[in-house]
Amino acid sequence: MREAFHEQLESIFSDLAEICREVETSVRQATRALLDGDAGVAEEVIAADAKIDAARQRVDDAAFSLLSLQQPVAGDLRVVVSALRMVSELERMGDLSVHVAKIARLRVPDVAVPEEARPTIARMGEVAEDMVRRVGAVIVEKDVDAAVELDRDDEEMDQLRRGSFTQLLGDDWRYGVEAAVDIALLGRYYERIADHAVSVANRVVFVVTGEFPAAGAASAG
Amino acid sequence: MREAFHEQLESIFSDLAEICREVETSVRQATRALLDGDAGVAEEVIAADAKIDAARQRVDDAAFSLLSLQQPVAGDLRVVVSALRMVSELERMGDLSVHVAKIARLRVPDVAVPEEARPTIARMGEVAEDMVRRVGAVIVEKDVDAAVELDRDDEEMDQLRRGSFTQLLGDDWRYGVEAAVDIALLGRYYERIADHAVSVANRVVFVVTGEFPAAGAASAG
Repeated sequence: MREAFHEQLESIFSDLAEICREVETSVRQATRALLDGDAGVAEEVIAADAKIDAARQRVDDAAFSLLSLQQPVAGDLRVVVSALRMVSELERMGDLSVHVAKIARLRVPDVAVPEEARPTIARMGEVAEDMVRRVGAVIVEKDVDAAVELDRDDEEMDQLRRGSFTQLLGDDWRYGVEAAVDIALLGRYYERIADHAVSVANRVVFVVTGEFPAAGAASAG
Repeated sequence: MREAFHEQLESIFSDLAEICREVETSVRQATRALLDGDAGVAEEVIAADAKIDAARQRVDDAAFSLLSLQQPVAGDLRVVVSALRMVSELERMGDLSVHVAKIARLRVPDVAVPEEARPTIARMGEVAEDMVRRVGAVIVEKDVDAAVELDRDDEEMDQLRRGSFTQLLGDDWRYGVEAAVDIALLGRYYERIADHAVSVANRVVFVVTGEFPAAGAASAG
């Protein structure tokens, strides 16, 4: 019974890692669509979201089946519920990539991000993508140290967001209200992707150690 | 055993309803802080969030204890997991009220919302508060019809948000970039509160009927 439980649990964690790879692709493509003003790539991100939603449904079903058939208690129960929470967060990260892609699509044939804001937004996209990639590795390897390191990238994301606000609220901002609003919302979407990445990583720490790395870390659901 | 299960479950749903009332207060106060530029009220919303977080933790613990001790399967299992998801969404709605309150606080002694945008933002606040209030009633009364009606308010929220974009991107917008960015983010926060309200209501429908009212409705986690 217990061996079957752990096999099924491993299979759920493999699915989580696979969804994480799909989210990583969505984040990368959404940033590309945004910086290149490429409607085709934006459409790919939007279309790919159905696949992430379906994969999430499969993980939900597998976790329910595991709970029903194996009736785990204590730590094992918390691990399965953590998996359910991780998959909702990964799905949400996919949705946020779609929001980025939709801003890209809305401005085609123009590019939503003006030249001056490009380095910051490009870096936000890189940091987000890198965080998602590393969360995938954390899930596969159950690497607690790597999970804790993600907090540092989240700090960079916060700095980038503050920097972009300083830029678009400065007196020399000459791209108007529309570009400013786009950038403020993009900053918010990337920040949320990063928040969820940290939260998923913290859940892995919880799965491995039975404790969250920091107070309140689990609340970013 | 089964009676104990249903008693404990009812107690969890009472706690969810109580959290919903606290979120309703936070949404109302956050809107008040925003429209009056009242830093004191904004601070109250920010401080009250710790109470919502603690209440969420208590529901989490109660749900885990129920899963461990009663080992529900099939429908009963799904109801408990739904409760876990509902409480995370309610907590998130509290966080979003805090985001609104923080924008209010940031602009004190000014008011973040310029006169022209006031009716739209005031209405967003009302719709959000009303949706949260009604979700509370849906949780208490397990009222499926009332749950389905929430979708209509969500439609009004989407229209309000589109209307506010039209306004702030119009040629006659004369309040500058900062106010526009504030309003775009506020619109996003109220829209997310409404999305979560619909999602929580849909989860109640699922708890009562075993089915979600519409495809994909469960994915707004």
